[in-house]
Amino acid sequence: MATTRLIQDAEASAEVKAVFDDIRKVRGTDFVNNFWRALANDPVALKATWEEIKQVMGPGTIDPMIKEMIYIAVSSANGCSYCIHSHTASARAKGMSGEQYSELLRVIGLAGKTNHMVNAMQVPVDPEFTV
Amino acid sequence: MATTRLIQDAEASAEVKAVFDDIRKVRGTDFVNNFWRALANDPVALKATWEEIKQVMGPGTIDPMIKEMIYIAVSSANGCSYCIHSHTASARAKGMSGEQYSELLRVIGLAGKTNHMVNAMQVPVDPEFTV
Amino acid sequence: MATTRLIQDAEASAEVKAVFDDIRKVRGTDFVNNFWRALANDPVALKATWEEIKQVMGPGTIDPMIKEMIYIAVSSANGCSYCIHSHTASARAKGMSGEQYSELLRVIGLAGKTNHMVNAMQVPVDPEFTV
Amino acid sequence: MATTRLIQDAEASAEVKAVFDDIRKVRGTDFVNNFWRALANDPVALKATWEEIKQVMGPGTIDPMIKEMIYIAVSSANGCSYCIHSHTASARAKGMSGEQYSELLRVIGLAGKTNHMVNAMQVPVDPEFTV
Amino acid sequence: MATTRLIQDAEASAEVKAVFDDIRKVRGTDFVNNFWRALANDPVALKATWEEIKQVMGPGTIDPMIKEMIYIAVSSANGCSYCIHSHTASARAKGMSGEQYSELLRVIGLAGKTNHMVNAMQVPVDPEFTV
Amino acid sequence: MATTRLIQDAEASAEVKAVFDDIRKVRGTDFVNNFWRALANDPVALKATWEEIKQVMGPGTIDPMIKEMIYIAVSSANGCSYCIHSHTASARAKGMSGEQYSELLRVIGLAGKTNHMVNAMQVPVDPEFTV
Repeated sequence: MATTRLIQDAEASAEVKAVFDDIRKVRGTDFVNNFWRALANDPVALKATWEEIKQVMGPGTIDPMIKEMIYIAVSSANGCSYCIHSHTASARAKGMSGEQYSELLRVIGLAGKTNHMVNAMQVPVDPEFTV
Repeated sequence: MATTRLIQDAEASAEVKAVFDDIRKVRGTDFVNNFWRALANDPVALKATWEEIKQVMGPGTIDPMIKEMIYIAVSSANGCSYCIHSHTASARAKGMSGEQYSELLRVIGLAGKTNHMVNAMQVPVDPEFTV
Repeated sequence: MATTRLIQDAEASAEVKAVFDDIRKVRGTDFVNNFWRALANDPVALKATWEEIKQVMGPGTIDPMIKEMIYIAVSSANGCSYCIHSHTASARAKGMSGEQYSELLRVIGLAGKTNHMVNAMQVPVDPEFTV
Repeated sequence: MATTRLIQDAEASAEVKAVFDDIRKVRGTDFVNNFWRALANDPVALKATWEEIKQVMGPGTIDPMIKEMIYIAVSSANGCSYCIHSHTASARAKGMSGEQYSELLRVIGLAGKTNHMVNAMQVPVDPEFTV
Repeated sequence: MATTRLIQDAEASAEVKAVFDDIRKVRGTDFVNNFWRALANDPVALKATWEEIKQVMGPGTIDPMIKEMIYIAVSSANGCSYCIHSHTASARAKGMSGEQYSELLRVIGLAGKTNHMVNAMQVPVDPEFTV
Repeated sequence: MATTRLIQDAEASAEVKAVFDDIRKVRGTDFVNNFWRALANDPVALKATWEEIKQVMGPGTIDPMIKEMIYIAVSSANGCSYCIHSHTASARAKGMSGEQYSELLRVIGLAGKTNHMVNAMQVPVDPEFTV
């Protein structure tokens, strides 16, 4: 259960409807997921966040599927259940194979392990790593 | 300053020396960074962690440079300063361009933003995302 | 489901009952939420935490409604689902408007974003910021 | 030490210089802090983040000083040292008194405490808290 | 709901079955919990993680019950709901009393509180604490 | 550098001096570490936190040295550098051996690893783990 209402299509203002329509068009599906419906209580944040996601997660020098995997990595470290679900679905939709997913999980797990050990030991940064 | 000693070459046991030698050989450099020197207080953990890193971070269905970028993503979410420094250096050594790094930072930043907003709103997982 | 029992009124010891009664009196409601029922397994911690909450969250130089919003901010960063729910309800009960809530979410989201980018870039603290 | 270069005025492109100039104008000071100099390696992200900060942290239904305090709260939970320093300086510049700061620290500390206890006990959300 | 399939006994490969059998033998129960069933999608990670858990969580200079309590502490800070449930059950199975659990929760809560306050105040490390 | 002043003995109020004196007496040393000097800007929080630490970290059904190790575990997960330093020093002062420290680091590292993997896979809690 959300701490805020999930805006349904029938109650969407023109501003919200325009963003929902663009989400549908860009993704080629009628499905608008709950994140956008929750955010729609604030039409300004809804539009700004959607524009940012389109700009950041689209094609560039990193493959969009890889970007989804990076998103999963951050979301797993932060324990954001919803984000993990939605971006795992996106990574799969963009072609992430079962083997790639297994390798991603191993990297996330290993990073979690060494992050904790390094924090516990307070290892000083080697001068060799500085820019 | 570390909370534990950093083991120098001159004081390394045979077990520790063997791992340091393998690190040097695999990486083609004489440099052994502080993480391994701190971990060397526990030769069993040193060997096990080095074997795990070699296995997990090596070639597979995800490119090793991309694995370093995923490592940076997890470490940034966890705020592990040392890990961020060492894996950013590794990603660069494996070919990460300035443009790829900029895109990585944008994805990490956006994930941090939506993770926090989703947590704050406690958005329920859409049934469409379930396996 | 909790990892510990939720103490019901009928089974509460005199010590626990006294705290539950004070919660009811201070809040002007018969409702005692699950946090207190879980904590009631340890009557000493129950009493100490309730006294601390009364002291910290009450009136002072920061408005109690604002304190609830700060609590939501910390809880969102920590991903504490229960805490987010309970303190969002408290903030609303103390008068937080829909517009204030939207602005709060924007600040939390932006802080999450820049926290991640700053961590990733390991930006050094400007001398101008030191006390 | 940063993992990326800090762009100095002399080497700033026209795009970067325009943002730096706006930062100076809006804040009424010649000082441009390191976050912007690090971010300036990516002029698109620099401009977008500065516009977002101006929009989100400016006046609205929450006082700008309070917004800085909320920012401190999120940054403390995330352990972002730079962010804590810069936003504590901003909160003070906007009028946060010593007493308000003390109260803020108490709320942050208490939230940290109960977040951890609630997580440990996995307290189920009361139906009374749902929207 | 998991983001990956939970491998049931009937569909387990020989490699997976061997690990499940060892889990059952070592623990003296027919019950194989969901963590292992999710991890079983990657038989290499399954075996490596199980071997690591046996080695790390077994008897040594720290009592296995205490190790479970330390695991609960880390998992509570990270907000890993599943991990908190499974390791609280393990700690209880290894003899953790109700009083020990209450004391554990108090330490976790206090650490959460001072971690947040120390982060907020950016307290410099005393030279007396260095190795 | 702290974001607040570190109160020195010469400037301590009577209230603050009384707490510093008690810290010295209980610990049998003249050394008052920076956490208390930073917190001393708020004499009420100083006294309350010191009383809580004495009560929570003292003898009980968990050994005080073990409590320090649990504190290290939470602080490592939260990345609180100061807390890791101070409580590692305390654990050593209370008798933590090098071998116990190595085992602690292994448990913290393993918990960090599985916390991240479990979060990434969103493993559902087994009904067997419920109270």
